[in-house]
Amino acid sequence: MIKDQIVPAGEVDPAHFDRGIFFGDGVYEVMRSYSGKLFALEEHLQRFGNSLSAVEITGIEMEEVRARILRAFDAAGIANAKIYFHVTRGSAPRDRAWDDSLEPNFFLNVSEVSDNTAERTNGIAASTHPDWRWKRCDIKSLNLLANVLAVADARGKGCAEAILVDEAGLITEGAGSAFFAIRGQTLQTAPLTANILPSITREFTLKAGRNIGLEIVEESLTVQQAAGADELVIASTTQDIVPVVRFEDRPVANGTPGKYAELLNREFRSFTR
Amino acid sequence: MIKDQIVPAGEVDPAHFDRGIFFGDGVYEVMRSYSGKLFALEEHLQRFGNSLSAVEITGIEMEEVRARILRAFDAAGIANAKIYFHVTRGSAPRDRAWDDSLEPNFFLNVSEVSDNTAERTNGIAASTHPDWRWKRCDIKSLNLLANVLAVADARGKGCAEAILVDEAGLITEGAGSAFFAIRGQTLQTAPLTANILPSITREFTLKAGRNIGLEIVEESLTVQQAAGADELVIASTTQDIVPVVRFEDRPVANGTPGKYAELLNREFRSFTR
Repeated sequence: MIKDQIVPAGEVDPAHFDRGIFFGDGVYEVMRSYSGKLFALEEHLQRFGNSLSAVEITGIEMEEVRARILRAFDAAGIANAKIYFHVTRGSAPRDRAWDDSLEPNFFLNVSEVSDNTAERTNGIAASTHPDWRWKRCDIKSLNLLANVLAVADARGKGCAEAILVDEAGLITEGAGSAFFAIRGQTLQTAPLTANILPSITREFTLKAGRNIGLEIVEESLTVQQAAGADELVIASTTQDIVPVVRFEDRPVANGTPGKYAELLNREFRSFTR
Repeated sequence: MIKDQIVPAGEVDPAHFDRGIFFGDGVYEVMRSYSGKLFALEEHLQRFGNSLSAVEITGIEMEEVRARILRAFDAAGIANAKIYFHVTRGSAPRDRAWDDSLEPNFFLNVSEVSDNTAERTNGIAASTHPDWRWKRCDIKSLNLLANVLAVADARGKGCAEAILVDEAGLITEGAGSAFFAIRGQTLQTAPLTANILPSITREFTLKAGRNIGLEIVEESLTVQQAAGADELVIASTTQDIVPVVRFEDRPVANGTPGKYAELLNREFRSFTR
């Protein structure tokens, strides 16, 4: 039955029996292009392969994925494109256990990256939310309801992003971004553990930080430490580096974007050309 | 792009843009009938309403859901039917934040309950797995990848079910079942917290326990306590009460189903008539 219409199971589009919808049994990537040039394709393919292995989805050739990305990107003809793709374990009658003969489903969508010049220039507000996510956030899986609920909470508070806080009171990352504090000459972010997505933009942000002379510290921050930082920034594939000028309803430093946010963004942009 | 075929976004079945697949942004129920009679319909509707509220999905009338269940059950004509249904927040271009105007998607599937007389009679083996689930397991959501991976691990060890163990070493529940230990005259299971699904079969199992004279203890068990119990059982909508005769690769007591498992099942079955 779909909405209020009874349909024999055999006639239903297999999309409705996708293990992706029944269980979130799949993994995904989001990548982008800058002015017609794909950015960090190899890094995204590498991470995608890691996610597939971690959830034991087999039968996906990475060369095939690469070819599909290039073909779809080409066909779309969008200069600043956001490319989303996922693989699920396949479509089958609902059962937690799976059959190894299942054929994985592949879905890819190309769209225009939303322009976020205003956010990058003026900064955003961020609030915190308990980190309700599962214990394997190192896998980029389709289980994202905790992120969705955290963002909804943030939007309800007039904030653009939710910063997730674990049970020990430590910041893990944003609901859809990596999170950094600049304190003195240091650029600090949480270390990569099972609770953190190995964000590709995080790596490039750390590289940008090193290039502009900041010391990198990979240690978790408390909410209080973050609130007292000189600057806060988030970073993600589709947003680059965005200054957080209000955090937990208070201004960060003087409440305007800091100099390092701008320097980091400039350096980061140089990688994308 | 679906598999290797490029399709304009406007021509893609909205099922591919379901927030259920992008984020697991939906909630579900599984209920069943015994010999043509639906069991615990009101309890399932009540819990479904609670799940919808918890994730702030609105626009679903519970009377409409009830009518759809009855209509689909009737049309299927299956005496021992498993009825699965889910509601997702709707189909839209992928964005963690949602638009309140979204229309939720409804999906329902009726199938035959697999006969598990052999399991109920002979018992099953269960292994343990770290509880990787998110921190709101009281919501019956579509984010079930942790459960899927735990069951796969169990099957790889020749076991039918994975019993989930939290970071403190305490058993929460099964990957697809409630979990109970019988020690002396007590029937023990974890208390209902944010980490436990408020299982309807759990409630009926506790009621059955009371009826046959067992004392109910709602306290979490360590793995060691469970391994040393007189009897272990799991309970779920589609399996009723199943004795666990091997746990962590060792026999439970003498390795055969105990008398209370049988008494509990008999009492439980009396509720379903």
